[in-house]
Amino acid sequence: MRFITYQKADVVSWGAVVETGNGQLTVADLSNKADSLKAAIEQDLLNDLTIDESIATLALDDVTLLPPITTPEKIICIGVNYANRNAEYKDGSEAPKFPSVFMRTPDSLTGHNLPLIRPPESHQLDYEGEIVVVIGKGGRRIKEEDAYSHIAGLTIMNEGTLRDWVRHAKFNVTQGKNFVHSGSVGPWMVSADEFTAADYEDMRVTTTVNGEVRQNDTTASMMFPIAYIISYLSQFYQLKAGDIIATGTPNGAGARFDPPKYLAPGDIVEVDVEGVGKLSNGIADEVL
Amino acid sequence: MRFITYQKADVVSWGAVVETGNGQLTVADLSNKADSLKAAIEQDLLNDLTIDESIATLALDDVTLLPPITTPEKIICIGVNYANRNAEYKDGSEAPKFPSVFMRTPDSLTGHNLPLIRPPESHQLDYEGEIVVVIGKGGRRIKEEDAYSHIAGLTIMNEGTLRDWVRHAKFNVTQGKNFVHSGSVGPWMVSADEFTAADYEDMRVTTTVNGEVRQNDTTASMMFPIAYIISYLSQFYQLKAGDIIATGTPNGAGARFDPPKYLAPGDIVEVDVEGVGKLSNGIADEVL
Repeated sequence: MRFITYQKADVVSWGAVVETGNGQLTVADLSNKADSLKAAIEQDLLNDLTIDESIATLALDDVTLLPPITTPEKIICIGVNYANRNAEYKDGSEAPKFPSVFMRTPDSLTGHNLPLIRPPESHQLDYEGEIVVVIGKGGRRIKEEDAYSHIAGLTIMNEGTLRDWVRHAKFNVTQGKNFVHSGSVGPWMVSADEFTAADYEDMRVTTTVNGEVRQNDTTASMMFPIAYIISYLSQFYQLKAGDIIATGTPNGAGARFDPPKYLAPGDIVEVDVEGVGKLSNGIADEVL
Repeated sequence: MRFITYQKADVVSWGAVVETGNGQLTVADLSNKADSLKAAIEQDLLNDLTIDESIATLALDDVTLLPPITTPEKIICIGVNYANRNAEYKDGSEAPKFPSVFMRTPDSLTGHNLPLIRPPESHQLDYEGEIVVVIGKGGRRIKEEDAYSHIAGLTIMNEGTLRDWVRHAKFNVTQGKNFVHSGSVGPWMVSADEFTAADYEDMRVTTTVNGEVRQNDTTASMMFPIAYIISYLSQFYQLKAGDIIATGTPNGAGARFDPPKYLAPGDIVEVDVEGVGKLSNGIADEVL
């Protein structure tokens, strides 16, 4: 099932996307079941919903999609995860023993079909297509063999980055990862009942810019697979329902080309994840 | 005025700490004014409260102090800020042009007088005494000359760190900064009406362990002063009421001694900030 958070007029709501008889994607509003998709995950309601065409009354095209979880407590991002990504840094370092971890704020991410914002401070806006885990059942020190049972569903992130601000300081990439609406997440969360362990372990992510393939790899190439990431993060974090984990991006971000290929107004970036969907965004210069 | 968030029995509330006639510190509950201290800041209520002895009915010693803001959207931390801190790294690098920035989660911080937790994963628990800005009026691209007007008040952080987990990976310090209850914040927020620009620019922070002074410096030594930090962070973040900014720690963390002096059960760490108060915590091994 595909779950969304959406806005229509000034009202933010949540619901499920269903395909009606005529093949149209329509929205069944579920705001009478819980206050938000995050609340529904906290209350473990998603598996008990009865959703059929009769309550799907809104055309998907008539709503604005927001990030599926608008107020996660944590948005955790994994850096340098796919094989050969470490080599891309060309710094002669050995492959890392543990994943690199940083955090983003909710404001740094916009929704599907909304523009990524290029700020006046930097024109090095870059894409990073990523598979995103939404935590269902929280936990601490989750074992790798139990990790998949803590997933509420998957969504997609364009983990948009201002490259020159990533290395502003001595340590940490926070600045270049947190410009308002520099990235995106969506279009929806596909619930975990649609995925098997085999899916999690060989799922393709493809990023295109104006139709040109820039990133294309599968989770089979991950140095730190999804089950490991959940287990590792829960050693220090208390993971909670609605927490967002972006699992890292394949080779081929714009900064790795010579000369670099940064995003500019007019470009369309699409991140396609097998079994989840396609996240699409244009680019707009910030209006001050 | 000193504002607190506190728990008594199972109820979390907020209020002000006032000195009653007999010199006792007592709590005036303010939960009838707003849902939380954060909500009161969002609604800009703090300057309009009338608080006198007549409503101060709870002994401060009878409540459990929680972090003043229990659910900030962002907990932003500045690394390597006091003069000579860069030199402590002994890596021959030049002083950084911009501050280092990372984030913590609310769970990583406990309150005043509650124990910092030493996890089984690491015995390198270290203190970092810091002055904390709580944002009042939010904003983006705040000018340095306007920065102080965006401060709701000041509090104190022991930005507790698991040293070996800070350098786990190629980039970023997130892991070693986010073990559950590895740090603390409190005891209260002192409202901004008690501080002048001169205070912000020469305020002493002192950290002791079992009474031995380990850190002792003033904000006059900052490479990136408080007004600059607020301005810099707001270039990429949308700062909001209740956001927490830990402004960096002076020289003298336990890791810098040879041999290192890490924290262990039985130790008492106190961080004293001039004009704000004293944050005190013991250490406990985590019970699994």
